[in-house]
Amino acid sequence: MDNGTAEAPWKAKAAIKRAAEAAKIPQEWRLAPEYLTGNEKSDVSVVEIPSKCGILSPAEIEITERYSAVALGRAVQSGQITASAVALAFCKRAAIAQQLTNCLTETFFEDALKRGRYLDDFLAEHKRPVGPLHGVPISIKDMMNYKGVPSTLGLISFLDHPVADQNSPLVDILLHLGAILYCKTNIPQTMMTADSDNNVFGRTLNPHRLSLTAGGSSGGEGALVALRGSILGIGTDIGGSIRIPALCCGTYGFKPSAHRIPYGGFAACSRRGSPGFPSVAGPLANSYEDLSFLVQNVIASKPWDLDASAIPVPWRAEVANSTPASLRIGYFIEYPTFKVSPPVVRTLEAAAKKLAAAGVTVVPLTTLPSITEAHKLISDTFSFDNTKTAIRHIQAGGEPLVPSVLKVGGSLLPKPDGYTVNDVFDHNVAKAVYKSAWNKIFVENALDVILCPGAGHTALPHDEYGVPPYTAIFNLLEYPGVVIPMGFADSSIDTDELARPDIVPPYDAKAVHGAPTSVQIVARNYHDEELVAAGRVINQILKS
Amino acid sequence: MDNGTAEAPWKAKAAIKRAAEAAKIPQEWRLAPEYLTGNEKSDVSVVEIPSKCGILSPAEIEITERYSAVALGRAVQSGQITASAVALAFCKRAAIAQQLTNCLTETFFEDALKRGRYLDDFLAEHKRPVGPLHGVPISIKDMMNYKGVPSTLGLISFLDHPVADQNSPLVDILLHLGAILYCKTNIPQTMMTADSDNNVFGRTLNPHRLSLTAGGSSGGEGALVALRGSILGIGTDIGGSIRIPALCCGTYGFKPSAHRIPYGGFAACSRRGSPGFPSVAGPLANSYEDLSFLVQNVIASKPWDLDASAIPVPWRAEVANSTPASLRIGYFIEYPTFKVSPPVVRTLEAAAKKLAAAGVTVVPLTTLPSITEAHKLISDTFSFDNTKTAIRHIQAGGEPLVPSVLKVGGSLLPKPDGYTVNDVFDHNVAKAVYKSAWNKIFVENALDVILCPGAGHTALPHDEYGVPPYTAIFNLLEYPGVVIPMGFADSSIDTDELARPDIVPPYDAKAVHGAPTSVQIVARNYHDEELVAAGRVINQILKS
Repeated sequence: MDNGTAEAPWKAKAAIKRAAEAAKIPQEWRLAPEYLTGNEKSDVSVVEIPSKCGILSPAEIEITERYSAVALGRAVQSGQITASAVALAFCKRAAIAQQLTNCLTETFFEDALKRGRYLDDFLAEHKRPVGPLHGVPISIKDMMNYKGVPSTLGLISFLDHPVADQNSPLVDILLHLGAILYCKTNIPQTMMTADSDNNVFGRTLNPHRLSLTAGGSSGGEGALVALRGSILGIGTDIGGSIRIPALCCGTYGFKPSAHRIPYGGFAACSRRGSPGFPSVAGPLANSYEDLSFLVQNVIASKPWDLDASAIPVPWRAEVANSTPASLRIGYFIEYPTFKVSPPVVRTLEAAAKKLAAAGVTVVPLTTLPSITEAHKLISDTFSFDNTKTAIRHIQAGGEPLVPSVLKVGGSLLPKPDGYTVNDVFDHNVAKAVYKSAWNKIFVENALDVILCPGAGHTALPHDEYGVPPYTAIFNLLEYPGVVIPMGFADSSIDTDELARPDIVPPYDAKAVHGAPTSVQIVARNYHDEELVAAGRVINQILKS
Repeated sequence: MDNGTAEAPWKAKAAIKRAAEAAKIPQEWRLAPEYLTGNEKSDVSVVEIPSKCGILSPAEIEITERYSAVALGRAVQSGQITASAVALAFCKRAAIAQQLTNCLTETFFEDALKRGRYLDDFLAEHKRPVGPLHGVPISIKDMMNYKGVPSTLGLISFLDHPVADQNSPLVDILLHLGAILYCKTNIPQTMMTADSDNNVFGRTLNPHRLSLTAGGSSGGEGALVALRGSILGIGTDIGGSIRIPALCCGTYGFKPSAHRIPYGGFAACSRRGSPGFPSVAGPLANSYEDLSFLVQNVIASKPWDLDASAIPVPWRAEVANSTPASLRIGYFIEYPTFKVSPPVVRTLEAAAKKLAAAGVTVVPLTTLPSITEAHKLISDTFSFDNTKTAIRHIQAGGEPLVPSVLKVGGSLLPKPDGYTVNDVFDHNVAKAVYKSAWNKIFVENALDVILCPGAGHTALPHDEYGVPPYTAIFNLLEYPGVVIPMGFADSSIDTDELARPDIVPPYDAKAVHGAPTSVQIVARNYHDEELVAAGRVINQILKS
């Protein structure tokens, strides 16, 4: 098939796909050349460009910047803003975000504009909204099937797949609740790294500094939400893939407990049916209240009727929406094996201090169960598939591994002879023992939640992120976790001198200057409602 | 070690153990020889003997026969009856049941009598009960660890194990809630058959007809509860092990959804860490209200604090205790592969008719997902352990397989080369598809629950039970299920002529005459509260 040109066939296929996607952006939404000077080596922020570039009207800037999803939904449902205007504003802003950070895979702006008109007509005719998400634009990670649109997962071999012939249950639910869907977002090759880079769509850049990773695997969501090209995005998380882009891009991110948000009918490049812990869907947003807004409404729709893999556990709104009379927060900054960098230390120390000053009981956790051991168990789960399905999908496209996949490649086959069923039994036993140890930490210290890092570092330069122990441990434990954005790394404060000498990767204050900082709050499994309630208090204190 | 006698060493060890247990029954609680004429070939009922044998006082007969667990707890907590009297009455009656049906493994009557005095003293001093189970006697299946007592699981090799050095979390919780524990109950060798027969304790007989099985694996519970030697028993169920003894012995039985009742710290003879569906603990009782009484109170104690494997999902008492305004009940009598015998057909038809007459919507389910396919998936789960741990524990004791284990032995190794991790992935994918099919049955028919057989037959003569598709399918699906006792097989009504010609095992009306009949009610996973509420209405209608 290669007719003698120097270019590999996969490159041509990818170029065609990218050109087709780029062509879908209307001429009048295209950025002037002066705004398009950055690339993955640029140490510049692009967060101000959407409001300055002249493509958005003042009303559109207001729609995209001044609201939470909750408030925007209310404004549309009460007739203050039309859904059509909302749809148009977010399509335009997403198109801008795409040009700045390469955060999108598929767009269906026409559908969204039509949807806006439908919602407006419905409201006018019935004098009631379609549902609680009426008028709320929601961006979705590439793996979620949207009828008529491909789910390529950034894989060359998947370019030959037919387009989705039906929506994933979650997509049906979002539409049923009244949401406006308009785009799908970028991911890493394999979806198993923290760099959203693949050979079909290329690499997503961090809007706060293009030379930094946007995180992954829901990195497109992170960049898009940070640029307010989305007010509410849905990612998935099996090792941190919601929380990592949130902490890299300075957004909120919430990984709920397993199976609470329906995960059925998503496209996958990993082998289905793993005996390891599951991946979980959840929201990224710019407003804390939007996290539970999404989760509460999806669960209230009884997603288990559409998707038997969703756990039929109702959302305890009375708990999630309450204000706890008192809070006991466990607190750790670092597990010695995985050193934490100066901006992370500073952020956590400041947060703990502020919480204590506000009267919250902060309990330093001096002895933690081994996170090194957790790392081994996590690695098992990511490697149980002896047939390495994701790698075979890559090979089928004739494409190379991207750098971040090459980097974590070793962990994709920690057992050269592969896993046996005996190994699975042993893994499950070890996991149960390990979960007990963390449960004891909560019970013996009477903790509501734990405050800890979401990573040992902020967003790093591309392809340096590596393993994510501080998020993945809570996948292993199946604990819900929230990332709360705090501020930014500052090379004049978070100096090289403050770094632990043996930190991996080596700390470079200048390289991460301007990267967002965050904290992570976690609770025990299925304590999502308690986490949401505690996190609201914590967020208010930290932001006061 | 065999010094030349004809007797195998395991027989001597078992005989010593049985003699030691028998010696714990006080002389004055021993039945006169005229009551001890039955054996496993006797076609006689022993249900009247406890109240007639003269060992129990009129007050003790009243305590053990006239109350539900709820009512008995109330009577003790309000001072009408002492916990000491309750403890004594149930210890005596359990001792009688043991002599009649061989339903017990371990007894700790002295502990129970002491416990009764402690509870009485506590109530007198504090003017409040220890907890909601204050004064309620509870029997536990042999696998539940009770400090200072062995958990041999009926295995010769386990006779050499040290006694339990701590309580299982569930046992601690029951004690914390105020229960009186007094005995552990008999099980099959391997706990994987429906005949509670092992080489240490021997075989449990069905009190309604000694020649019939008491069911298994919680067969000791079934017989003990049916004889009112227990007012509330705790069994476990991975293929029907609560519901089978319930339907064999004519008691209520409730298998909740997975992980709701804490299962941590139980003794096991199977390999821990299986990637298949889990075993589940739950109650057997003579009164419907006692099922949710137990489950609600255990869950209200937050068992996940003691046992990280318990799912932290609160009990929705307001749902469980409500009366549904209307009910839609799916209904099937038989899946063609697994023929159903005349008393089962008669019982289900009568139940459906009575429910319909009472205004309940009964929806006949004419097309069911394949139960043959389910049977294959169930067989996988029971066989994933390539090392056949349970069989090795049997071999280690030098004892033979009991007949019921020999009979199901084939299903213990359906894949001669053993299972691979690939098989586990494929199994999980097939299981998810299968679960979806049943979920659709519920959703498309808008069903609250399904009414169906718990088995293709009533209790059968010993060692004829075989595979249990009508219970195990709801383990595979992880659906909660309740068995409701209805009446008795009657050879003059349920005649041989009514049997399907190809029913397995062949129907013999005379052989099962007098066996209890039952129905099973199931709901979707984690719809335990809805099941309890619907089941209460159904039970009331069926008993009216």
